[in-house]
Amino acid sequence: MYHHLKDTVTSEISLVLDAVEEERIRQLMQSILSARTVVVHGAGRVGLACKAFSMRLGHLGRTAYAASDSTVPPVGTGDLVIVASSSGETQTSFDVGYLAKKNGAKIAVITAATHSRIGGLADVLIELKTQTKFGPTEDRASIQPMATLFEQSLQILFDVLVLMLMSETRQSHADLWSRHSNLD
Amino acid sequence: MYHHLKDTVTSEISLVLDAVEEERIRQLMQSILSARTVVVHGAGRVGLACKAFSMRLGHLGRTAYAASDSTVPPVGTGDLVIVASSSGETQTSFDVGYLAKKNGAKIAVITAATHSRIGGLADVLIELKTQTKFGPTEDRASIQPMATLFEQSLQILFDVLVLMLMSETRQSHADLWSRHSNLD
Amino acid sequence: MYHHLKDTVTSEISLVLDAVEEERIRQLMQSILSARTVVVHGAGRVGLACKAFSMRLGHLGRTAYAASDSTVPPVGTGDLVIVASSSGETQTSFDVGYLAKKNGAKIAVITAATHSRIGGLADVLIELKTQTKFGPTEDRASIQPMATLFEQSLQILFDVLVLMLMSETRQSHADLWSRHSNLD
Amino acid sequence: MYHHLKDTVTSEISLVLDAVEEERIRQLMQSILSARTVVVHGAGRVGLACKAFSMRLGHLGRTAYAASDSTVPPVGTGDLVIVASSSGETQTSFDVGYLAKKNGAKIAVITAATHSRIGGLADVLIELKTQTKFGPTEDRASIQPMATLFEQSLQILFDVLVLMLMSETRQSHADLWSRHSNLD
Repeated sequence: MYHHLKDTVTSEISLVLDAVEEERIRQLMQSILSARTVVVHGAGRVGLACKAFSMRLGHLGRTAYAASDSTVPPVGTGDLVIVASSSGETQTSFDVGYLAKKNGAKIAVITAATHSRIGGLADVLIELKTQTKFGPTEDRASIQPMATLFEQSLQILFDVLVLMLMSETRQSHADLWSRHSNLD
Repeated sequence: MYHHLKDTVTSEISLVLDAVEEERIRQLMQSILSARTVVVHGAGRVGLACKAFSMRLGHLGRTAYAASDSTVPPVGTGDLVIVASSSGETQTSFDVGYLAKKNGAKIAVITAATHSRIGGLADVLIELKTQTKFGPTEDRASIQPMATLFEQSLQILFDVLVLMLMSETRQSHADLWSRHSNLD
Repeated sequence: MYHHLKDTVTSEISLVLDAVEEERIRQLMQSILSARTVVVHGAGRVGLACKAFSMRLGHLGRTAYAASDSTVPPVGTGDLVIVASSSGETQTSFDVGYLAKKNGAKIAVITAATHSRIGGLADVLIELKTQTKFGPTEDRASIQPMATLFEQSLQILFDVLVLMLMSETRQSHADLWSRHSNLD
Repeated sequence: MYHHLKDTVTSEISLVLDAVEEERIRQLMQSILSARTVVVHGAGRVGLACKAFSMRLGHLGRTAYAASDSTVPPVGTGDLVIVASSSGETQTSFDVGYLAKKNGAKIAVITAATHSRIGGLADVLIELKTQTKFGPTEDRASIQPMATLFEQSLQILFDVLVLMLMSETRQSHADLWSRHSNLD
């Protein structure tokens, strides 16, 4: 049962990631590289993937924050705020994106619902073709509950982006380790 | 470049998960089902995967906590503490596992290093055959930096376990949604 | 300088707490004792005081959560959501209070601005007469920056409430210790 | 009852803060001002006071982190790690202090137990004369449970230190507001 389920899950993730347009990922990468400060935000388990990405951005030497970090500076022109939301309607995530846009930051949105309220804020828009909390649709279903497939795809998308950023900035594994906390 | 990297990453994860023994996963599942309280702990990005799993355990109706939650009760006989650590040597994670064992809880360890200090605490031991922070070895390498492959595999292992728990306890997607917070 | 500043700060806090109506505190205490589940929420440093209070509610044996905990259940009739906000206008805190009220929970608000949007949601309303992020007013000023005085007063108000709850439920220090995590 | 308890609590805090030696506070202030990076750490509710202080250090324009933030850099010579622990024996807090010292950082410790393991790591040592988790002693008791009095005194000590840092660096309330997040 484990091996069968594992195969289904990894296939689901692979299909979602296949459907992402490379051009959009490159736009997001360039936005990160040209930003003064990057803030990454999402709610619940999506927020955990966002925090994980902000940690790697730190390892890459970027000035980056999860929205829950202690010393997030005010954002404005020249900064990038990345908001992820499967439904694109999470109220608290909309608030963060809305406030960031109002203050002049560039907004990147990763969502399963590009026509959502949060999608509407995007300067850079990446679609992950998964079901949302509003449930499966004809061409988007998953054996997995809730927004699991979105969260998994988001996490791996971010990790692929890390590899692209490493390549673009010519950094090695050792370069990233050198910026890792030595307190745990 | 994106699609090529994405294929490599999903292949890496799939290989790691293939090598996990189903029997061990079933042991972990049974330990979860028979535990009064489950606490899940890891450091850094590993800790984020642990928190994500504790959230789903809550959705499944189990009494579960991430070690950083506000009201983690004292653990003892009848409780399960799951500790994840790629190297098996993370000091703060060892502390949690050690204290849990001393207080009588059952310990499940998920690690890339079964002969580590944390591995030595395990009642249930699951190996993810990835590189650790001590670097790649002959048969364990990854194009990905740091413990990324461990973290990804851990996250998906937990999500497969969720599917097994749903099946074992005959729960639907709707059952899980019914226990989701309505405050975000 | 230290001793002079320390005296001013403790006097400021004492004055704010003196002006709180005891009857309101008793209402809040009764609401906590009659609630099935209590969720406590605030943003930023106010949120830290809220999380600290949810921890003590756990020590008191109540079913309590900070809104950021892993397994916050859906709230509804019979539950209590406590929202703290100095200005009463923090968007994400308003969202939590609004969603809680819409779902049938009772709302307690602690704020310096009772006529605010968040104040307007309250079933139980407690005023802390401090300045807010909108700055000092004629009768409300502090030598301390930002919402510091609100945060300090809130923290101590919560801690006094703990003493009242201990007395009302006849619990000793040892009773609280017995529910403390044994993993740190 | 509320007003009586409130008076007792604020008196307890005031007495603890009176007994702190100003010279030690000035040492801590100078250590903060000369540090490249400041990391503040504690466990549980003590950790919340530490996170609150790291937020204000950010508002003051210092490079500061709570140990749980996303992008804590490695610390070494020229950095300051502040560890707070009432008992001075909290294992995970000892680990952080120990690792910081081993890596060359300066260590400041705030504790009720100066002869503890964590106290022994200190370059700058501040005593708050309160009871610890090991219980009250002849000259240190509190009506409040657990380490509440330590946590309250710590929070206000940090806030007084903020006022001293503002004075020393000639900053106004508006200067601090200008560095506050505009995303909530």
